[in-house]
Amino acid sequence: MPRLRLALAQIDPTVGDLPGNSSLVHGWTSKAAGAGAHVVAFPEMMLTGYPVEDLVFRRSFVAASKRAVDDLAAQLAGDGLGETVVIVGYLDADEAGPRNALAVLHRGTQVATYFKHHLPNYGVFDEDRYFEPGDTLTVIRVGGVDIALTICEDLWQEGGPFAVAAAAKVGLVININGSPYELNKDDTRLALVARRAAEARATIAYVNTVGAQDELVFDGDSMVVRPDGSLIARAQQFAEQLMVLDLDLPAAEPVPPVVEDAEMRVVNVLISDSVVAADQPAPAPEIAARVTDEAEVWQALVVGLRDYVRKNGFRGVAVALSGGIDSAVVTAIACDALGPANVTAVSLPSGHSSQHSKDDAEDMARRTGLDYRVEPIQPMVDGFLANMALSGLAVENLQARVRGVIMMAISNQEGPLVLTTGNKSELAVGYSTLYGDSVGAFNPLKDVPKTLVWKLARWRNEEAERRGDVPPIPERSISKPPSAELRPGQLDSDSLPDYEVLDAILAGYVDGDLGRDDLIAAGHDPAVVDRTLRMVDLAEYKRRQSAPGTKISIKAFGRDRRLPITNRFRETPS
Amino acid sequence: MPRLRLALAQIDPTVGDLPGNSSLVHGWTSKAAGAGAHVVAFPEMMLTGYPVEDLVFRRSFVAASKRAVDDLAAQLAGDGLGETVVIVGYLDADEAGPRNALAVLHRGTQVATYFKHHLPNYGVFDEDRYFEPGDTLTVIRVGGVDIALTICEDLWQEGGPFAVAAAAKVGLVININGSPYELNKDDTRLALVARRAAEARATIAYVNTVGAQDELVFDGDSMVVRPDGSLIARAQQFAEQLMVLDLDLPAAEPVPPVVEDAEMRVVNVLISDSVVAADQPAPAPEIAARVTDEAEVWQALVVGLRDYVRKNGFRGVAVALSGGIDSAVVTAIACDALGPANVTAVSLPSGHSSQHSKDDAEDMARRTGLDYRVEPIQPMVDGFLANMALSGLAVENLQARVRGVIMMAISNQEGPLVLTTGNKSELAVGYSTLYGDSVGAFNPLKDVPKTLVWKLARWRNEEAERRGDVPPIPERSISKPPSAELRPGQLDSDSLPDYEVLDAILAGYVDGDLGRDDLIAAGHDPAVVDRTLRMVDLAEYKRRQSAPGTKISIKAFGRDRRLPITNRFRETPS
Repeated sequence: MPRLRLALAQIDPTVGDLPGNSSLVHGWTSKAAGAGAHVVAFPEMMLTGYPVEDLVFRRSFVAASKRAVDDLAAQLAGDGLGETVVIVGYLDADEAGPRNALAVLHRGTQVATYFKHHLPNYGVFDEDRYFEPGDTLTVIRVGGVDIALTICEDLWQEGGPFAVAAAAKVGLVININGSPYELNKDDTRLALVARRAAEARATIAYVNTVGAQDELVFDGDSMVVRPDGSLIARAQQFAEQLMVLDLDLPAAEPVPPVVEDAEMRVVNVLISDSVVAADQPAPAPEIAARVTDEAEVWQALVVGLRDYVRKNGFRGVAVALSGGIDSAVVTAIACDALGPANVTAVSLPSGHSSQHSKDDAEDMARRTGLDYRVEPIQPMVDGFLANMALSGLAVENLQARVRGVIMMAISNQEGPLVLTTGNKSELAVGYSTLYGDSVGAFNPLKDVPKTLVWKLARWRNEEAERRGDVPPIPERSISKPPSAELRPGQLDSDSLPDYEVLDAILAGYVDGDLGRDDLIAAGHDPAVVDRTLRMVDLAEYKRRQSAPGTKISIKAFGRDRRLPITNRFRETPS
Repeated sequence: MPRLRLALAQIDPTVGDLPGNSSLVHGWTSKAAGAGAHVVAFPEMMLTGYPVEDLVFRRSFVAASKRAVDDLAAQLAGDGLGETVVIVGYLDADEAGPRNALAVLHRGTQVATYFKHHLPNYGVFDEDRYFEPGDTLTVIRVGGVDIALTICEDLWQEGGPFAVAAAAKVGLVININGSPYELNKDDTRLALVARRAAEARATIAYVNTVGAQDELVFDGDSMVVRPDGSLIARAQQFAEQLMVLDLDLPAAEPVPPVVEDAEMRVVNVLISDSVVAADQPAPAPEIAARVTDEAEVWQALVVGLRDYVRKNGFRGVAVALSGGIDSAVVTAIACDALGPANVTAVSLPSGHSSQHSKDDAEDMARRTGLDYRVEPIQPMVDGFLANMALSGLAVENLQARVRGVIMMAISNQEGPLVLTTGNKSELAVGYSTLYGDSVGAFNPLKDVPKTLVWKLARWRNEEAERRGDVPPIPERSISKPPSAELRPGQLDSDSLPDYEVLDAILAGYVDGDLGRDDLIAAGHDPAVVDRTLRMVDLAEYKRRQSAPGTKISIKAFGRDRRLPITNRFRETPS
């Protein structure tokens, strides 16, 4: 049985940064070669980053991606790394259209190519918009082992590449991914890889991106699973890692079997019938332990924020720190992501701010050592009230908007990116001020319901205690009843159902697409369901109210021009 | 040759408003029956509105759509309209998934159904995300004429339903549409209908939605074209209209021909072998004249704004009127869309505002008779400057943001929707203040380049003169060099290339997906191309900076939760 040493590079590309991503591949290939690996696999669309959205339609970008593959192959060989078989995702295009592609590099050239067969077009995926599906399964022979090559969604569908791989009698299927994180997705993923290993009757090596791109975060969770479903190696989530392991795999038959398949043709590429065995066996593969849900989400939020700030070229962030739970948790995430020295927290008290709010903000600053300042808003608010006749909600919103103006002035004057802090429950029901507390370039809590915000706060403080550190979040910020403090004595509970009840209804309505009758059948109070759904339907309008306009040309901004925010591809020489 | 009287109802549904849309169908069917029509056809997804985006995934919404079809059929029959054959678009679903569907109603029931075959998944369309394609061509026999039924994109693809219709030897193909407007799309559309009429060897009756939904505007342009390509009737763009005409059509063969087609099965439905001929011939069909590009765009912008305001339940709008060209054109559009009494224009002068700016704003108010007021911003700006150490760009942006706070305070206090006025050229290069002049719920100029803004202004004034009205826009607002007036003596030309040059580059880069080298090859100055592309790449970030956040659940807000803004579907009893 031939023994192959395989390396899986779970790393973090940046969308559009072709030179930077190539350089990452070069560096990690060098490490893999140093560890004696025969084959190293990188994630889906590694050279371009993922997802590149409408950049796919720019010919100059496609050309740059193809050129990057050729240049990378030549550079690897030039630097003595040509013997290592490198498997790397990139953007290709042929007469049929753009392709979500994988290149195999060896001895200075691209010796094989695979085009993704199953294209996802649901949830966050729009791949029917962007790519033509491939109809060829590429099988490379390395060290006398046949290896089928697949990309991401190919793994999620029964039939197709994995069934064809079984017919081709391969010993290993490599699956490269840009698979975004979702809570508990790691459980689904392991079961899925095991199912597909059984279908292919082969070992599966799964390598995933780690890091974040705009609103998506990739958790890694790379793994190797035997045909019987046994897990033999698994990487940590949310951390870059080179997983190197020795695999004893079935020897390929001298002549590859002929596969008759209506859907996919098999292309066999011989790279090597034998390899130089390593002097020493690779260290025993590790199976990283799973962590709690709170730890997993916290890491996702930290990585999401860190990459958004870093990849967009910012160094620090500014947060309006009220003393309440949401801004406290955002501030703690920011300190973990960027270090407290890169976090500016601004207390913006008004006449309605309680003493405990001001004290809790200051306490948080002391606990973390971040950059802290106080900017009282009343003088500016009074400037508007003296010149305009405003009352009620207009005055409440005015306070939130003056805070927004101050935060943006600090951003313009000093450079930090402003974070906004509305949690998913608040956003869902529209409990926020448009152009007020919603001002900011990134919101770590946008997808975190209020009840989970509290759990995260408690988890983070307990984690600090376990490590012997000072818990970053003041206990009172967690335990006190939430309030927007925009009028005297205001509490969230004046306007909203209890958050436990609210979050359960929102999970059904927003995440589950349930209707009113379904929610009532699930046991919710009809009056609370009606009240909540009315709020959500109205808020949908407010949440989307960021200046849409009438479309009159082939491509307007917005719906039909989907470009990544974080994107370093530049047409111009820098 | 049988003579059928056909009615095409070019009307304006509202997304989610099932009862309101049903009631529109009822009312226009009554008019069509009154005019002696045997058949009346309504647009694509008429009962739900189009596009409904992720509402498709809510089972309660699908159920409501199906119920609306049944109820409508019963109500029509109950009101004596059961003999008129009604063809109407709706949302259906079966075991395969959701369907973009068409119902044929007759004598109180749904006698036939068609599911859209070609699903568009490019530009503004995401139909692969939402629908399963149909594989059956429905042919109804009415008055002894075979009529094939098709939906929108079916017309844009060669092969498929129109080829099958030819094999089925139908006399007429009805094509119902929700086809968004683009500049000059009407020219493409006529040529396309003619091509498809030749393919089907049948007359084509094309009916399209009119009105607007969020960023899309539908121009109508319904028409009837003979198999030889001759146009025999055409509706106006941007206006509701019931087009009624007599068509002499080939009699169907007694037994429908057997069609062998790999792609689509034909289902024949007999409704009637003869009809009662009308006493009087229908009036001669009209072919509406085409208008100039400026007139066409102006109408699109007026309809886009009017429907956005009306369908979201607002009555009036507020605009910050600077005396410059952009806000003047937006104000004129608003006056045309809503009437000057529903337009509040606010002059917001600072210390840097020129006298001519203030005079031109006031002049525009006088010319139009809108609601006008002046709110000097300097006292509020000074309030911030007295309490914070700000300089340079931070001070420029502060002025724009104070204006945004004032506009939103007026909106909260008095109820109008705030319009923002940045044109497409400015937005493309990021020449605006985030949370400043970009504040607003809708932007009529979002997709209008600056050079077209000037053309529209001139056209609107000339049009007024042709009608003997007062031109709404002060001549000086059109002729003076554009300036943001955020610092002394500032002009757009300090920061931007000449707008003629800029717009040509933007058309290539933004609309045409051209790269740097393509633009230079097209004759643009390399230095100007580089400068412009750098600005656009940076602005992409700013334009999208409306609080994205890290995704951690099945459905986050934003990318993967695409719900219509304008949407009246409610789960709760109202």
